[in-house]
Amino acid sequence: MPQPPSLPERLPLLLQDLPPRWAHFCLGVERFLQETGLDLEGKCLLVAVSGGADSTALLLVLHWLTPRLGCRLWAAHLDHGLRPESPEDAAFAGALCERLGLPCLAGAVDVAQAARSRGVGIEEAGREERYAFLERARREAHADLVAAGHHLNDLAEDQVMRQLRGTGWPALAGMEALDRGRRLLRPLLLTPKRDLEELLREVGVAWREDSSNRDPAFLRNRVRSSILPALKRENPNYLEAVASLWRQGRLDRAYWDARVDELTGGRAALQKQAAARRVVLGKADLMVAPPALRLRACKAALDSLGPGQALAEALLRLDHAVQRSSEGKVFQFPGGKQARVTPEGVVFTGPEPGAKRS
Amino acid sequence: MPQPPSLPERLPLLLQDLPPRWAHFCLGVERFLQETGLDLEGKCLLVAVSGGADSTALLLVLHWLTPRLGCRLWAAHLDHGLRPESPEDAAFAGALCERLGLPCLAGAVDVAQAARSRGVGIEEAGREERYAFLERARREAHADLVAAGHHLNDLAEDQVMRQLRGTGWPALAGMEALDRGRRLLRPLLLTPKRDLEELLREVGVAWREDSSNRDPAFLRNRVRSSILPALKRENPNYLEAVASLWRQGRLDRAYWDARVDELTGGRAALQKQAAARRVVLGKADLMVAPPALRLRACKAALDSLGPGQALAEALLRLDHAVQRSSEGKVFQFPGGKQARVTPEGVVFTGPEPGAKRS
Repeated sequence: MPQPPSLPERLPLLLQDLPPRWAHFCLGVERFLQETGLDLEGKCLLVAVSGGADSTALLLVLHWLTPRLGCRLWAAHLDHGLRPESPEDAAFAGALCERLGLPCLAGAVDVAQAARSRGVGIEEAGREERYAFLERARREAHADLVAAGHHLNDLAEDQVMRQLRGTGWPALAGMEALDRGRRLLRPLLLTPKRDLEELLREVGVAWREDSSNRDPAFLRNRVRSSILPALKRENPNYLEAVASLWRQGRLDRAYWDARVDELTGGRAALQKQAAARRVVLGKADLMVAPPALRLRACKAALDSLGPGQALAEALLRLDHAVQRSSEGKVFQFPGGKQARVTPEGVVFTGPEPGAKRS
Repeated sequence: MPQPPSLPERLPLLLQDLPPRWAHFCLGVERFLQETGLDLEGKCLLVAVSGGADSTALLLVLHWLTPRLGCRLWAAHLDHGLRPESPEDAAFAGALCERLGLPCLAGAVDVAQAARSRGVGIEEAGREERYAFLERARREAHADLVAAGHHLNDLAEDQVMRQLRGTGWPALAGMEALDRGRRLLRPLLLTPKRDLEELLREVGVAWREDSSNRDPAFLRNRVRSSILPALKRENPNYLEAVASLWRQGRLDRAYWDARVDELTGGRAALQKQAAARRVVLGKADLMVAPPALRLRACKAALDSLGPGQALAEALLRLDHAVQRSSEGKVFQFPGGKQARVTPEGVVFTGPEPGAKRS
């Protein structure tokens, strides 16, 4: 089978085949992976490959690093069926994996149809289908984690979108590099997109462009095309500020997770209660906790009950009621969850199984 | 002396003279003042009055609230000498104070000249001259605090400017309602500007417009005219998200202040060391502290040494060196301050007296 024209005749297959600058670049990604505290030795990663610059670069960098990381790679590509050229993206992903000698799981779905039948937007349906497919693929590959190509520019967009929604701290700092709950790893999260494109040009790989990344119907695209350029005009090093805020968020997340565990008896205890869709934070514990901790404990209780992000404002209102012991007050949260202030403390309940999420 | 046409014949002088909606509005400002934990009974406030909508509304609202707050008011106006119409602003402020029966201290300065002679921008020189004047006026009036007209739209701008600069949490949440160090109070900080203008129209007071508020040479004006409208387009309730983030920041600031006090022996102990321009955080204390706390302790030590904001990135780099006990490493911070990692711990030093701040 002839190679598609987008792959070069001689693609570097080993880290030592790379120009020094780019070998050094890969070692920076390795250091970032070490910072997550994750040991990849003996592990298997499933790399989500769309064919775009981000995930193509991710696949290559991880491939070059595998001898050092001691892990194995699989790839997976989902054809979303939204653009006429999407089969070519799939062919590109397949050809790249073949060249690297990596197994690739391919899937296809009709996202537009899924969006219609579930009454949600294309963006949301695409995300849900993609993550469901990747989770199936991860199990099929017996992989420990899914690796995704999110980079520093994605993180900058994510921070602005969280800012717009009214997300509190530390969630405002943006998506995690290692999301253990979702078994998701983002090795490039502090790498600027520009570096990824430059790397691909250097090694002669012509990635696929996804035209829907420019569609102004999607909030993310409007943030990318109008708000971020305005921020970068005011501070050309804005992406560095994004990375610093994220690093501070990581420290604070670890700090608050530990304090919340002390208050609640640990995640396992919360999860055990959450399995019965009812989590209680005792009044005595809450009343002696500083408000800053109480807020995070309530958020952890809500998070344990399933998807749906509680915003800062709603948590502040709940905490105000806790502080005043306003018994009987009920607060609704996204994802069909609610919190009720009772003489016992705060009782959090999850949605009925099978109930539609709000 | 005839009244300038901008003051109505019948200006409400008492809270009970206001339409119910606006009396209620004033009581909301009173509640916000209570939230700061400040008791104004028997206190004197010096209100900074520019003649713009914000400070005009502030003066009126505080005047209507004084019988309830039990405090006295003075006003102060500084003519910055930057616009040909500035003497009219001064006349307006004087006439308003006369009508309310309040003493008003007037001053004048040539900000453009001050900027040239100090080699700084107009914006910075204006701010420095203004706060120096207000501090002199506060002493002259024997006032406890200066009250400034910053409102929720100013806070939204402040958050974006801090985001642009790379400010860490909780400083990212924006300026304080009560800045005890600078003896500054911002009673309208969570009030939208729109409400202030509506109040003034309701009571028939035509405020003065400062044309320099539209000058795109100033970062704040560009944030106001381009970045904030883009954020509000995506979330029409964006100002509510700003207020929630600020409220969470206030909780976290109180939390971290208390933790830092435990680590450092309290602000008074820091201030005492800072008087000799040398503050030491002991290695034993730092090494057992979680990184999230260590970062804040280092920031508090730097803050005690005078003006100049340490950004998140610089604090993270310092903390990295502390964690690795990289003795001998020196870090420079704004305001001519520096931190040195030593066997003793971290030694923070302030600028030489009279040295130019970087």
